[in-house]
Amino acid sequence: MSKPVRISLDAMGGDHGPSIVIPGAALALERHPDIRFLIFGNEAVIAPLLDAHPKLKAASELRHTEISIAMDEKPSQAIRMGRGKSSMWKAVQAVRDGEADACVSAGNTGALMATAKICLKTMAHIERPAIAAMWPTMRGESIVLDVGATIGADAGHLVDMAIMGAAMARIVFDLERPTVGLLNVGTEEIKGIEAVKEAGRILRERDAPYLEYRGFVEGDDIGKGTVDVVVTEGFTGNIALKTAEGTAKQIGQYLRSAMSRTLMAKIGYLFAKQAFDALRDKMDPRKVNGGLFLGLEGVVVKSHGGTDDLGFASAIDVAYDMAHFELMKTIRGMLEHDPVGHEA
Amino acid sequence: MSKPVRISLDAMGGDHGPSIVIPGAALALERHPDIRFLIFGNEAVIAPLLDAHPKLKAASELRHTEISIAMDEKPSQAIRMGRGKSSMWKAVQAVRDGEADACVSAGNTGALMATAKICLKTMAHIERPAIAAMWPTMRGESIVLDVGATIGADAGHLVDMAIMGAAMARIVFDLERPTVGLLNVGTEEIKGIEAVKEAGRILRERDAPYLEYRGFVEGDDIGKGTVDVVVTEGFTGNIALKTAEGTAKQIGQYLRSAMSRTLMAKIGYLFAKQAFDALRDKMDPRKVNGGLFLGLEGVVVKSHGGTDDLGFASAIDVAYDMAHFELMKTIRGMLEHDPVGHEA
Repeated sequence: MSKPVRISLDAMGGDHGPSIVIPGAALALERHPDIRFLIFGNEAVIAPLLDAHPKLKAASELRHTEISIAMDEKPSQAIRMGRGKSSMWKAVQAVRDGEADACVSAGNTGALMATAKICLKTMAHIERPAIAAMWPTMRGESIVLDVGATIGADAGHLVDMAIMGAAMARIVFDLERPTVGLLNVGTEEIKGIEAVKEAGRILRERDAPYLEYRGFVEGDDIGKGTVDVVVTEGFTGNIALKTAEGTAKQIGQYLRSAMSRTLMAKIGYLFAKQAFDALRDKMDPRKVNGGLFLGLEGVVVKSHGGTDDLGFASAIDVAYDMAHFELMKTIRGMLEHDPVGHEA
Repeated sequence: MSKPVRISLDAMGGDHGPSIVIPGAALALERHPDIRFLIFGNEAVIAPLLDAHPKLKAASELRHTEISIAMDEKPSQAIRMGRGKSSMWKAVQAVRDGEADACVSAGNTGALMATAKICLKTMAHIERPAIAAMWPTMRGESIVLDVGATIGADAGHLVDMAIMGAAMARIVFDLERPTVGLLNVGTEEIKGIEAVKEAGRILRERDAPYLEYRGFVEGDDIGKGTVDVVVTEGFTGNIALKTAEGTAKQIGQYLRSAMSRTLMAKIGYLFAKQAFDALRDKMDPRKVNGGLFLGLEGVVVKSHGGTDDLGFASAIDVAYDMAHFELMKTIRGMLEHDPVGHEA
C-alpha cells in the first residue's frame, strides 16, 4: 500500500464549522480511503460528531484548540489572536511542520491567506501567492487565477501565475503541456493593460516546454474553455468569478420560474426531471468548491465559507489531488527547469 | 404631434452592414413611428433595401458615403481615412451639427469611440467618456459602466460615471433617485482598490439628491440587481460583461444538451416548450443590445457588431429613449446642480 495522504483540517472555519467539516471529511474518506486526517478545533463539539462517523474517527487524530477565527475577523486581528493557537493556524502549521501534506479550511479568505503567508512562507522564485479556482466550462473545466489573493499584478506576477497554474493543470487535467491564456479586453480602442502585454511577450519568447501560451483571451473565453489556464490579477479575477456565479444563479432562477408558470410547463418538468437533475448537478457550485493557494511552501485549500458537507468534501478532494500528485514538486520542477517570473 | 426624434445611422458598420441595419431600422420605426432616420452609407447597396421597406424609406433620408470603416480597423487609421468622409464619421457628425438627436453604429468600438471623441468632444466637467450597458438581472435590468471605453479609473472618473449612470437610470427606469454601487472585491484580505474606496467616500459625503449611493457591490450583485447602476473601470467592466455572456451561453448549451439526451427529456421539452421559449426570450442578448457612450456632447449608441436586425432595433430603441427623454439635459442638470467628479 502506498503512503497515506495526510490532510489537516481547520474544523472551526466557515459559517457552519464542525457540523459540515466532519461529515464532509467522512464523505472525502469514502472516496479516498488512504486519507489520514489531523483535525483541529473544539474537542467538546467535534468528538461527538466523530463518534457518529466511526470510519472517519479511526482515520483521524483530533487536537483540541481554544481559539476560532470568526468569518469577519480582519487578517491582522486573526494573526494577533490566532498565532500558534487558533484551529486555523494549527492546521496550516501542521503542513509547515511536515505533519500534514495539505490543509483545508472554510475560514475567512483574508485570515487564511495571512496565516498561510506567515506560517508557510512564499516559495523561492515566487514573489507572492495567488488563489486558483476550478471553473466549469463547455469543454469540461479550466483553472482561473488569481481570484482574489492580491489586487494588481505586474508582468512578472502574471508570468509566475501562468507557471503555477500550469503546474496545477498538469496534475488536475493530466496534461503534459497545458494551454495558458492571459485575460484581456479585446476591443481595438483599449488594447489591454501594459503588464498583460508584457507578460504575453515574456511567455511567447520563453516558449516553455511545460506550458503552451495561447495569447490573450476575453471574458467569454473562460466559459468556452478556450484554454486550460486563465491568468489575471486578483481584482478582475474575483469580479469575473463572482459575476459568473451570479449569472448562473440568475439563470437557475429564470428556469425554475419558467418551469412552474403553467400546467404544461410543470408536466414537461416532470417528464424531463432527470435531465433537469443532470443539469443542476452540472451547475452545482459545490462540485468545484476549493480555491487553491498557490505560491506557498505547502498546499492550502480554501473551501467556500457557506458550503455544506458535499462542498467541503470537494475542497478536500482538491487538497488530496495536490498532495497525492505532488503539486509542490511539480511547481519546483518547472521553476528550476526554466526559472521565469519577476526576477527574469 | 410632438417633435420627431431624429436618429442618424452608420449603415455600413457591423459584421453584416446594411442587410441588418435597414431591417433593424424598419423594426424600430414600427415601435416608434416618430423616428426620422438619416442614413449614411453606400447608396447602391442601401437604396434597394429601402425600397423593400416603403414606410422606412418615407421616414428616412439616405446620404451616400464612399468610405466604410472595417471591423478590424485601428482607431487611428479609422480617423485618418474616415475623417469627414466615412459613414461612421458622417453619422456622428450629424449629431454634432444638430441634424440628428442621436447616432447608432454597429461599427468597431474603438473606431466609433475615437470618432465620437474627436467629433463630439467630451462634456464639460467630464474628463473622459464611458460605455454603459444594460444588464438583465433577477429584478429586471441594471446599468453597468464602464464596459470598455478606458482602462483604469481614478476616484474622480468613478464619481463621474456614477453621475452619468444615474442620469441614464433616471431615464431608462424612470426613477427619481436611482441606487448606485461601486464594484469591488469583498474578501477581507483585499479591501479593494484605493480609487474605489476614495470614490465611495466622495459619493457618501456628497449624498447627492439625484442618486442614492449604496456602497460597494460584488460581482454576484450585478445579476442579483442589488443596485440600479454598477460602476467600475473599463477593464474589469469589460471582463465582467463578457464573462457573464459566456456563462449564459454555456448554461444555454448545457440545457439544450440535457433536453435532447433522452426520449423522456425530449417529451418534457415539448410540453414545456412555451416555458423554454419564454426563458430563451428572457436570456436573448439581442434584447439588451446597445452600449451607450456617456460623457460626450451628444448621444452615440454602439450596437453589437455581430447582431441581427432585432438586435440593431434594440440599439435604436436605446438611442430613441435617450434622445426622447433628453439624456444630455439630464446629465447637464445633475452636473450643474452639484458638480462633482475629478475636479471636485
